[in-house]
Amino acid sequence: MKAKVYVTLKPSVLDPQGKAIKHAVELLGFNAVSDIRKGKYFEIAIDGSRSADDARADAEKLARDVLSNPIIEDFRVEIEQ
Amino acid sequence: MKAKVYVTLKPSVLDPQGKAIKHAVELLGFNAVSDIRKGKYFEIAIDGSRSADDARADAEKLARDVLSNPIIEDFRVEIEQ
Repeated sequence: MKAKVYVTLKPSVLDPQGKAIKHAVELLGFNAVSDIRKGKYFEIAIDGSRSADDARADAEKLARDVLSNPIIEDFRVEIEQ
Repeated sequence: MKAKVYVTLKPSVLDPQGKAIKHAVELLGFNAVSDIRKGKYFEIAIDGSRSADDARADAEKLARDVLSNPIIEDFRVEIEQ
């Protein structure tokens, strides 16, 4: 079973890395791009013996405790069979 | 319109950062986790005046040319209205 965790900065938090990418992209001529924000993405392989609910609980605990900083980041978990 | 770009290391490429996270996670007692791979995630805001096809073409060019290293990384693009 695979869990996918997406970690993004909260909307109110500045993202200087995203701003730098946006600036570079503008110089390359992509004029339709109005904003870029960078996040993190994790693919977690979980033993097939766990139920989907247990796997989701594990992945959410992992995302909250290890993979994200809940003060400045949000996360989202998807489970794939 | 929003484009989401997911960049992951190709399966054949070693991911030492993911391995380090997996090791830390094991020490914390998550025994059901058999592997973790870390990727990048970008949210790109694209002018609403572009059609969905144009936005996808832009986002794919951006992902290929700027956001990923095609030698060691794969990418996936999703368009959200």
